[in-house]
Amino acid sequence: MSAQIPITVRDRISDKAAKTLDIVAKFVEEDCIPADTVFEAQVGVGDARWKAHPKILEDLKQKARSLGLWNMFLPKGHYKESPGFTNLEYGLMAEWLGKSRVASEAVNCAAPDTGNMEVLARYGNDAQKAEWLRPLMDGVIRSAFLMTEPQVASSDARNIELKMVRDGDHYVLNGSKWWSSGAGDPRCKIYIVMGKSDPNNKDPYKQQSVILVPSGTKGITIHRMLSVYGYDDAPHGHGHITFHNVRVPASNLVLGEGRGFEIIQGRLGPGRIHHTMRTIGAAERALEWMLMRINDPKKTPFGKQLREHGVILEWVAKSRLEIDAARLVVLNAAIKMDEQGPKAALKEIAQAKVLVPQTALTVIDRAVQSFGGAGVSQDTPLANMWAQIRTLRLADGPDEVHLQQMGRNENRRGKEVAAKIAAQQAKAEELLKKYSVTRSELGSNIKH
Amino acid sequence: MSAQIPITVRDRISDKAAKTLDIVAKFVEEDCIPADTVFEAQVGVGDARWKAHPKILEDLKQKARSLGLWNMFLPKGHYKESPGFTNLEYGLMAEWLGKSRVASEAVNCAAPDTGNMEVLARYGNDAQKAEWLRPLMDGVIRSAFLMTEPQVASSDARNIELKMVRDGDHYVLNGSKWWSSGAGDPRCKIYIVMGKSDPNNKDPYKQQSVILVPSGTKGITIHRMLSVYGYDDAPHGHGHITFHNVRVPASNLVLGEGRGFEIIQGRLGPGRIHHTMRTIGAAERALEWMLMRINDPKKTPFGKQLREHGVILEWVAKSRLEIDAARLVVLNAAIKMDEQGPKAALKEIAQAKVLVPQTALTVIDRAVQSFGGAGVSQDTPLANMWAQIRTLRLADGPDEVHLQQMGRNENRRGKEVAAKIAAQQAKAEELLKKYSVTRSELGSNIKH
Amino acid sequence: MSAQIPITVRDRISDKAAKTLDIVAKFVEEDCIPADTVFEAQVGVGDARWKAHPKILEDLKQKARSLGLWNMFLPKGHYKESPGFTNLEYGLMAEWLGKSRVASEAVNCAAPDTGNMEVLARYGNDAQKAEWLRPLMDGVIRSAFLMTEPQVASSDARNIELKMVRDGDHYVLNGSKWWSSGAGDPRCKIYIVMGKSDPNNKDPYKQQSVILVPSGTKGITIHRMLSVYGYDDAPHGHGHITFHNVRVPASNLVLGEGRGFEIIQGRLGPGRIHHTMRTIGAAERALEWMLMRINDPKKTPFGKQLREHGVILEWVAKSRLEIDAARLVVLNAAIKMDEQGPKAALKEIAQAKVLVPQTALTVIDRAVQSFGGAGVSQDTPLANMWAQIRTLRLADGPDEVHLQQMGRNENRRGKEVAAKIAAQQAKAEELLKKYSVTRSELGSNIKH
Amino acid sequence: MSAQIPITVRDRISDKAAKTLDIVAKFVEEDCIPADTVFEAQVGVGDARWKAHPKILEDLKQKARSLGLWNMFLPKGHYKESPGFTNLEYGLMAEWLGKSRVASEAVNCAAPDTGNMEVLARYGNDAQKAEWLRPLMDGVIRSAFLMTEPQVASSDARNIELKMVRDGDHYVLNGSKWWSSGAGDPRCKIYIVMGKSDPNNKDPYKQQSVILVPSGTKGITIHRMLSVYGYDDAPHGHGHITFHNVRVPASNLVLGEGRGFEIIQGRLGPGRIHHTMRTIGAAERALEWMLMRINDPKKTPFGKQLREHGVILEWVAKSRLEIDAARLVVLNAAIKMDEQGPKAALKEIAQAKVLVPQTALTVIDRAVQSFGGAGVSQDTPLANMWAQIRTLRLADGPDEVHLQQMGRNENRRGKEVAAKIAAQQAKAEELLKKYSVTRSELGSNIKH
Repeated sequence: MSAQIPITVRDRISDKAAKTLDIVAKFVEEDCIPADTVFEAQVGVGDARWKAHPKILEDLKQKARSLGLWNMFLPKGHYKESPGFTNLEYGLMAEWLGKSRVASEAVNCAAPDTGNMEVLARYGNDAQKAEWLRPLMDGVIRSAFLMTEPQVASSDARNIELKMVRDGDHYVLNGSKWWSSGAGDPRCKIYIVMGKSDPNNKDPYKQQSVILVPSGTKGITIHRMLSVYGYDDAPHGHGHITFHNVRVPASNLVLGEGRGFEIIQGRLGPGRIHHTMRTIGAAERALEWMLMRINDPKKTPFGKQLREHGVILEWVAKSRLEIDAARLVVLNAAIKMDEQGPKAALKEIAQAKVLVPQTALTVIDRAVQSFGGAGVSQDTPLANMWAQIRTLRLADGPDEVHLQQMGRNENRRGKEVAAKIAAQQAKAEELLKKYSVTRSELGSNIKH
Repeated sequence: MSAQIPITVRDRISDKAAKTLDIVAKFVEEDCIPADTVFEAQVGVGDARWKAHPKILEDLKQKARSLGLWNMFLPKGHYKESPGFTNLEYGLMAEWLGKSRVASEAVNCAAPDTGNMEVLARYGNDAQKAEWLRPLMDGVIRSAFLMTEPQVASSDARNIELKMVRDGDHYVLNGSKWWSSGAGDPRCKIYIVMGKSDPNNKDPYKQQSVILVPSGTKGITIHRMLSVYGYDDAPHGHGHITFHNVRVPASNLVLGEGRGFEIIQGRLGPGRIHHTMRTIGAAERALEWMLMRINDPKKTPFGKQLREHGVILEWVAKSRLEIDAARLVVLNAAIKMDEQGPKAALKEIAQAKVLVPQTALTVIDRAVQSFGGAGVSQDTPLANMWAQIRTLRLADGPDEVHLQQMGRNENRRGKEVAAKIAAQQAKAEELLKKYSVTRSELGSNIKH
Repeated sequence: MSAQIPITVRDRISDKAAKTLDIVAKFVEEDCIPADTVFEAQVGVGDARWKAHPKILEDLKQKARSLGLWNMFLPKGHYKESPGFTNLEYGLMAEWLGKSRVASEAVNCAAPDTGNMEVLARYGNDAQKAEWLRPLMDGVIRSAFLMTEPQVASSDARNIELKMVRDGDHYVLNGSKWWSSGAGDPRCKIYIVMGKSDPNNKDPYKQQSVILVPSGTKGITIHRMLSVYGYDDAPHGHGHITFHNVRVPASNLVLGEGRGFEIIQGRLGPGRIHHTMRTIGAAERALEWMLMRINDPKKTPFGKQLREHGVILEWVAKSRLEIDAARLVVLNAAIKMDEQGPKAALKEIAQAKVLVPQTALTVIDRAVQSFGGAGVSQDTPLANMWAQIRTLRLADGPDEVHLQQMGRNENRRGKEVAAKIAAQQAKAEELLKKYSVTRSELGSNIKH
Repeated sequence: MSAQIPITVRDRISDKAAKTLDIVAKFVEEDCIPADTVFEAQVGVGDARWKAHPKILEDLKQKARSLGLWNMFLPKGHYKESPGFTNLEYGLMAEWLGKSRVASEAVNCAAPDTGNMEVLARYGNDAQKAEWLRPLMDGVIRSAFLMTEPQVASSDARNIELKMVRDGDHYVLNGSKWWSSGAGDPRCKIYIVMGKSDPNNKDPYKQQSVILVPSGTKGITIHRMLSVYGYDDAPHGHGHITFHNVRVPASNLVLGEGRGFEIIQGRLGPGRIHHTMRTIGAAERALEWMLMRINDPKKTPFGKQLREHGVILEWVAKSRLEIDAARLVVLNAAIKMDEQGPKAALKEIAQAKVLVPQTALTVIDRAVQSFGGAGVSQDTPLANMWAQIRTLRLADGPDEVHLQQMGRNENRRGKEVAAKIAAQQAKAEELLKKYSVTRSELGSNIKH
């Protein structure tokens, strides 16, 4: 909550944001986390899980709205619908949302709707906004973003190949998508689909378009749902969806043919800030559970509480340190995005994208280990959190792709830096002469 | 298979074992791994999963027996029922069994039955053997070992507190057990239960007894099954079981009252060799899947196959190295156990217990990462393997408990080593005098 | 320089500080780094190294003063002698100073003088200030802080046992000190010495006092100098010094008898910020050298430049990320110290103290590895930098002591957190009832 | 000593080798380690260090010969001069030799002489053997192997470019060499030099030749010695040597023109076994020092001995485990080399080459950390050991080059493995049909 904001950023947090942050924190801890249990129970078992819309969620949404918590993710200044928070301010709220499974949806800030609403708000025309953005903003429907495909290496988006062929005033879509997160939810009414509309364009970044496809369109089949380390993540889920001659009005095209890359790039920046801040919240919750466990008076192996054993306090200290460092990295990226825009913040966002999930996985795994068997089971939130966050090392490109790109960018300094060092060395030689002194090279007097 | 046995141990492998190993390898690769898919399909969905006994398993068992593959785990020399393999020889076979979900059970070498059969063979009386060991050896029933309890720190087995009270010629059991692996299987007919029969015994290692409890006994409730990450591991499963006034004939006691610790300690050594060798097999399979993926001609991010990208070949090399090193550690432990018994091999077994799961988790996680989304889903065996093996860092005591114990043992050398170094330093001083030379201490001529 | 200040802190940097930072950066890169070579050459060889005062250093000091760079470390607001920078502002300058061996001394901001000047400025009386602070502020003499002792575990300062016995209006000192950094310099005129003046005081934090001892006092012997991975660090050096009946006027006592702990605690905060920021500068320089090497057109193993090989760009990316994260951690600590004082910033300072040296060592070691043989030799600054920074994981207490303390502090939340989770769980049970829904426990319908 | 031989290899150790191993162990612990101090004292200071031949070394050599310890490295069966030990057997002895600085030379098993003697014994003609092998075998002279060059990426030996031009019955050599280890020793009389004799040969592996160059030949200058971190490693040292029109008789050519690669490849296998086993010995010694320290009754931070603090025992346990695993890896490689030759053992040797130095560095660094300041100084052998072993991650090719090669080799299985998995998947489909069962795909019944 507001009292825990790192001092570095505190002066950038408005009073309104600080107050809202406190309300978010209280709402998450007192309402949402307890509701998680009910939500899971209401989702039920078997195929019913994909038809469920747990009632408690609607009750939470109502409460959230009454508390003034709604759509906080929409950044200040860019959208008239925005409640007026910066990415930094919302980032701090997102951390709290990340502690609970239902919290983000309860305040209408859940992925992938947030990114999808940004796409519609930024790139959609008025008709598209009226039809899809309005109900999304109202939390009446949900949405999915269909990009990744099973048969190609989608980490390089140029490989995406779902066919989009113009036929009169329609496009006809054929192909497969997977990791279509949110597609399991019965309220998911709209798919934002990336496909290849111009496969022969010489510029590989102009071959793709984005189009809006109502989820009930003929020819669409939810082939199956993907599991994540055994979890189905229902009702949300991760869909594997096939398109067979799916006809969509050409007016559903977003921004224009060949502008797919433009759209997906604009979409990623804020989403990565949200994701990473939620992930930090998850790590904080894991640390809290770990603290609970190691101080549990009933668990005393070898006559001592866990906190008194060997490495445990060092794990706590490292977890604290690593979370705190990771948070500063994300907040720095958020400020850069707020003040200079997402393009200028590319490096900082990429750093957060790579650092935070690895940090959180380490912290959560320590918590699992300190719980013993309970840690891997349904009795703590830890195993599920670990599985969800493990996917973040892959989603939107695996760590290694980002690291290569970051390495290439940093390496651009190579030539300039080499020149600087060469100049320093030349100057050193000059100075040696000026001071009439020679390097005393080790062993230079050896005469064998 | 036999051609890949590390040269260090090859001369200890009999011709018969080498031949059997080749048969095991072929059976696993050609029959069991394909059968895993059918097994999972036959297990079905929902509550039916806990009633299933997939037909394919019985067919595999029949084939296995016809190939002479049955009960290979029972070590040579100790049991007349043994097919005559050493722990080393069986260890090499277990590696192959670990590549498939059904293979161990298909050759009647599945945990926890193996350890339970050893308990019965070593400590059971004739009646107990006839009733329970015989059908277990025949693969007609299955068994569970009930030790860990939810409400105490079971990593210190002295904390185990299920009440066992003598009442005439019966014991009455009250309490809770969890992580009762295998209890979900409808064919699981016998529980080997550890409980506290003499809570006031001054020797905390004499308070516990082990008793045989038929799974259908009145008062036993399978409260629920525990998940491992999101997997239920059905029909096997991990049970949370409650005992309410469960009456068991006193003749079901194993070995005698107060001898529980003796029994569990004898049980662990070979089991750890089996587990770790199976785990190495799993790591090998993960590496194979990774190799498949990085050479997949259809997956070419940024114009190159994955094997040509950045760190991938280094991951392959490290995985190869780490698996090979871990295998040598286990085989060394197996030889020590074969030649000097499990007590002498405590250090070596503990090293394998700690090293192997961590190694395998690292290898599997690299494979997951190289697969992208498919890696965490049901489309590869990787996510499930990772989850199963993650529990091995906790089962039979968390790594940290073992490391503390290992550290204490190694530290016993402290005094002797300190004396040796002191003697060396004294001798050095003597020698300096003898050679009339003084240490040239840095800066010893400083006179400011 | 000022263009690279992390955006998070930029608005806290005054124009004057930004301008000074640019001057510092230019001075370091263009004057100090080339001068490092001359400095080392002027130090010479053998015993002469401890008598050297390289002329180039005085020339640099003159230039520094002419540029307005002098004593920037003295924090704004606390001392009238301060040039008016916050710890944050000076921290950014210290990063640049850390790239060169001579730079800190050239601007009179070198340890241990900085900490010693703070002690004198804060705790010294007027006479002490006139005699010692004045010439230190003028860069005319140097100083050492004598705390650690060879025969005890000094990481727990209560163990320090150099005897300080009052004898009339003098104290008589007997004992040994080591790691007395700077004591090798012939210009080191004053030792600030911690000793035990009241060994029987019940409060172990009141047994120690701090006294000023002129380095030439009778009875003091520089026994020898300690090496750091083979480096002597001359003329500065790390002294092992013995005190034999050293008589010092009682008026040299700082603050008063028994107040040693108070003094050393006040001394550490800012010093840790300085040290860690300099260390970040060293890491930046190592990364620059690495970039030079991997782009060297003459070094092409296997037909490709190093930057095109396997893991190299990932090393670059990780180094960039880790340095950037570590810097944010230090700057956050600096701001906290500036705004709330060193006590409030204890956690943040400890985090920087532990994180930064490990980060820098990792970065430098990658650079060493990319250089091959040159990396470990005198041909790059890398090996020496690594050795110097390795000591920071030990100096002022080993990492492990800090981590234990940090773990204990974080663990203070244990009780509160456990209560919160218990309340959440109770509320969840309530809600389940309210919504008339039950948890669907896995396997709870098993009836075997 | 022989009682500690891993059980896995014990049956391959002859009685003679076991006895010799015990003698080696005793000689190292009781004679050589104390002599290390005297050796360092006798080497002296300044330029004298490169002229020194410490007397104690000759005394040790005499004692070693009287104990029957001489040239044990020369493998059994290959050389008539061999004392008859396998690489495995000598490897176990090399572990002990690695604990002391002087021990290897005392028994005439020091690098680079061992590899050089192998070159001469295997590839030299009778005249070359008489002139150089004989005195080397007698320990009368020493030798250096000049391969690496400062101006190229020598990790790819094809880049080596020292010019060797035939001129009548001589070769004329021009160029630079560095990391010429041992060249600092006044007794180093012979250089084995690799150069480019046929730069235009189409086969880049035929351009190089190896020639014997007496160290006093006209035109050779020891330009300087390279330091390793701050150590000079005198009198042995690491030379940077220039060749200016150095004329050598053509009869000094080894094996024939263009056969340089053949020679260096034959030279590396056994040397890597020796190096890695010595490194394991160093790690063992570091662990012993650590055990001494953590049990030191005088070092009690916060009222407890170090062994009772936090992570220390876990460090001990991990060190024990990691050393033991690394040793098994080397011994497995040694056996493979003994039984199937160095080519067959390439994989195993490369694994040892990469694994062992990293393991030892980790163990030594833990020991340094547990010592505090003493660990980085001249007061323990640790800092020096660390620096020496750090070079092994670079010598004979950096780790990364080996890992890439190992990855490529392992990846050769890619196609075969992919085919196997494809066959398994096809068989699974068949079996599903045969058993009339279908996969129950998650969410496949979703109909939204």
